[in-house]
Amino acid sequence: MKIGGKHYRSVWLEPDGWSAGIIDQTKLPHEFALLRLASAEDCARAIKTMQTRGAPLIGAVAAYGLCLALRADASDEALDRAHAMLLAQRPTAVNLRWALDAVRDAVRNRPRGERVAAAYAKAKAICDDDAATCEAIGEHGLALFEQAWAKKSRRGKLEVLTHCNAGWLATVDWGTALAPIYKAHDKGIPIHVWVDETRPRNQGAALTAWELGQHGVDHTVIVDNAGGHLMQHGKVDLCIVGTDRVTANGDVCNKIGTYLKALAAKDNGVPFYVGLPHSTIDWTLDDGMKIPIEEREADEVTEIAGRAPDGSITRVRVPPQGSAAANYGFDVTPARLVTALITERGVCPATREGLKALYRA
Amino acid sequence: MKIGGKHYRSVWLEPDGWSAGIIDQTKLPHEFALLRLASAEDCARAIKTMQTRGAPLIGAVAAYGLCLALRADASDEALDRAHAMLLAQRPTAVNLRWALDAVRDAVRNRPRGERVAAAYAKAKAICDDDAATCEAIGEHGLALFEQAWAKKSRRGKLEVLTHCNAGWLATVDWGTALAPIYKAHDKGIPIHVWVDETRPRNQGAALTAWELGQHGVDHTVIVDNAGGHLMQHGKVDLCIVGTDRVTANGDVCNKIGTYLKALAAKDNGVPFYVGLPHSTIDWTLDDGMKIPIEEREADEVTEIAGRAPDGSITRVRVPPQGSAAANYGFDVTPARLVTALITERGVCPATREGLKALYRA
Repeated sequence: MKIGGKHYRSVWLEPDGWSAGIIDQTKLPHEFALLRLASAEDCARAIKTMQTRGAPLIGAVAAYGLCLALRADASDEALDRAHAMLLAQRPTAVNLRWALDAVRDAVRNRPRGERVAAAYAKAKAICDDDAATCEAIGEHGLALFEQAWAKKSRRGKLEVLTHCNAGWLATVDWGTALAPIYKAHDKGIPIHVWVDETRPRNQGAALTAWELGQHGVDHTVIVDNAGGHLMQHGKVDLCIVGTDRVTANGDVCNKIGTYLKALAAKDNGVPFYVGLPHSTIDWTLDDGMKIPIEEREADEVTEIAGRAPDGSITRVRVPPQGSAAANYGFDVTPARLVTALITERGVCPATREGLKALYRA
Repeated sequence: MKIGGKHYRSVWLEPDGWSAGIIDQTKLPHEFALLRLASAEDCARAIKTMQTRGAPLIGAVAAYGLCLALRADASDEALDRAHAMLLAQRPTAVNLRWALDAVRDAVRNRPRGERVAAAYAKAKAICDDDAATCEAIGEHGLALFEQAWAKKSRRGKLEVLTHCNAGWLATVDWGTALAPIYKAHDKGIPIHVWVDETRPRNQGAALTAWELGQHGVDHTVIVDNAGGHLMQHGKVDLCIVGTDRVTANGDVCNKIGTYLKALAAKDNGVPFYVGLPHSTIDWTLDDGMKIPIEEREADEVTEIAGRAPDGSITRVRVPPQGSAAANYGFDVTPARLVTALITERGVCPATREGLKALYRA
């Protein structure tokens, strides 16, 4: 996607042909800083400190971490050591292990002299595959957006509401929920996005708003409380969100607050779409209520980071000392509230049959 | 209600017998500062700068402002001048005009020598009436809370969710939505309150959490996104909120985001109650969608005030420069989502018939 008119991915090979570049996401949206990762340790630190984030993106950066480790020492021992070290940075992210295993499998039975080139080829393939998957989600979503645009007789703007950040900053390129938005914008559909700020971590206000702004997509930041009112008053043509896990029956686990927006969409006849790659489908679960919901640190609720008047990034506390806070990371939107799932293979109903028709036919 | 074990109202006559005392609400929750108002100008400034807030409370403070003006000069001209000056501070608040008119009417046809005493008597009556109204809401709500507590076989805690601040800081004492919570707590029902932080102005995190904490009521601050998840998982026994306007058919206009919580309550079979005094009923409207919704300044969304690590109160900006923000102050919860209205005259369904039975019988 574009930043100030220039095309970027969220991870890339530097012109030197061996080090990796990323955007330091901890500085966004107030500062656009690039980081050059020249060792496996650099990659590990970037993952640990969330300078790079989003499950697909973490996997891609870790893949480059293995390349850099092999470049320093192509032995089996060095490979295994770097694999374990990188994996330990975010032990719960499924994509991290998947990408590390993929690179290791690609080099393991090769002579040392071929390993570095094979690793870089695999890392590139992981990035290209992720970008292609997300772009395909974008194309399939675009067809739905075009229908919605035709339905309102191509008047005004196509009004879209999204929650959290399921954009290209969380993937290698395009994003999942935001991919159709970029496709529609690039195709000339006048689109306006209502961006839920997405408390407590404010990924909407900080990351989605920044992404959309850099690509030139018209958008307005709103508090998470506002979406129901907007839908009641006909100001939203469709909602689209990403997901962290979709069960085999189509229940959607996503950032806390998604369920409330889906309820409002249903109550007001607004389509509610979910963009996802196949890797997000959990075929082993058939009830979203069985998904364990992560409870995170209370200080993400009680303290808010932003730019102070003096330009520094500061954290301020809102509630009184002594008031407890609870921080549930995700909620589950029942399949009955989801209009359709948008995957890289096409659009399907949020049902077991719908998913099977795309993936197990 | 109690602060650190001591009983307070949110406005009071000082021991000198003539000046008025308030809590400086702009300093809460990080500092508990009292203000002494010794002139009509002091009262005007406190209303203007929101050191005192909440429609009933503003009226009461303005009433004391007229008393103080008359104490300085009991002439008709001084009375009219002070009335106009105080009214101009928050021209949209209905209670402000009502209270100022009430004091003026009480003194107008009296000899100058009696005016000051008559004004103070009226101001006291306004405060006492407001406290009594809110306490009656508390008593009627308590009966519902006792039923809910019996329904869960008095096990664990009675789990209540509230949005925004409809507590005693917005009234003279007790509050509206919070009155039944205080009544239940004082009666020994073990109660726990989920406090929506209530973006953008964070009245829940800043004021409701502080009120509850000072009175010793167990509570947990959550982001506005979390309530649906809590209700899905049986962690909320009932919701209760205040309101800025109830239409004759029972539609409830309240702080933005209330509608989303009402949808989640309906979807999960959780009772959704609204506490209100009669002055909130708008008999002239029979459709909440006709209520004009105030759009406020965007910087309330983009900037968040809190206590910085150095102890100072600081505002930090979250979204990127250049991203627009919209700030809708209220939304409307359709009557069909409201389990019952709790008024000072009793509990009724959120219907025209229900309201008429209480108020127009």
